[in-house]
Amino acid sequence: MNTSFAKLPEPPYYAVIFSSQRNAEDDAGYGAAADRMLELAAQQPGYLGAESTRGADGFGITVSYWASEAAILAWKHHAEHAAIRAHGRKHWYDHFELRVAKVERAYGKPIPRPVA
Amino acid sequence: MNTSFAKLPEPPYYAVIFSSQRNAEDDAGYGAAADRMLELAAQQPGYLGAESTRGADGFGITVSYWASEAAILAWKHHAEHAAIRAHGRKHWYDHFELRVAKVERAYGKPIPRPVA
Repeated sequence: MNTSFAKLPEPPYYAVIFSSQRNAEDDAGYGAAADRMLELAAQQPGYLGAESTRGADGFGITVSYWASEAAILAWKHHAEHAAIRAHGRKHWYDHFELRVAKVERAYGKPIPRPVA
Repeated sequence: MNTSFAKLPEPPYYAVIFSSQRNAEDDAGYGAAADRMLELAAQQPGYLGAESTRGADGFGITVSYWASEAAILAWKHHAEHAAIRAHGRKHWYDHFELRVAKVERAYGKPIPRPVA
């Protein structure tokens, strides 16, 4: 799973916020599919990046970033994505929530540390 | 840390997406402050809910949800929040990114499971 920061352009752009509670089933299948989804997403037109993490309790948040609503819709209708998504909802999650949002402003930075 | 799903109204509303890389310093102080921030946020006018998780590698995502931009700005300028935020950026994180977004649509659900 990707746990680094996405390098994004200046806003505006779009965010898909996916939160999910994993059940205890099929860790190997889930992990392979999650990796494949990020690999496929990165090939889509308008994909900007993603950040993802999951705690030991199985609650996870993945935020993917996109240049436009059209790019999000094209990804939604991507055939392999749709098939894996349907499998995932049936087998891997107890609950999920998905929110689509337009990012209006952003800031952040690495924190400088004194050199020892 | 809160790792349950936020119960939100129908969009539109706003999301503050905060991703961060924790360093290895001061777990006790950080944990107490994180709990206190969620407690304070929940008392703010326009606060709708939050979801938060962090992986074993220290990379975390917290998304808080707000009724309006004005509610986000009031929270930003809350004195205790501002003080803890400044302390956190100085001591607890190696890197953070913050994005403010307007949620335009949302869906999700608990997945029904057959009763055994």
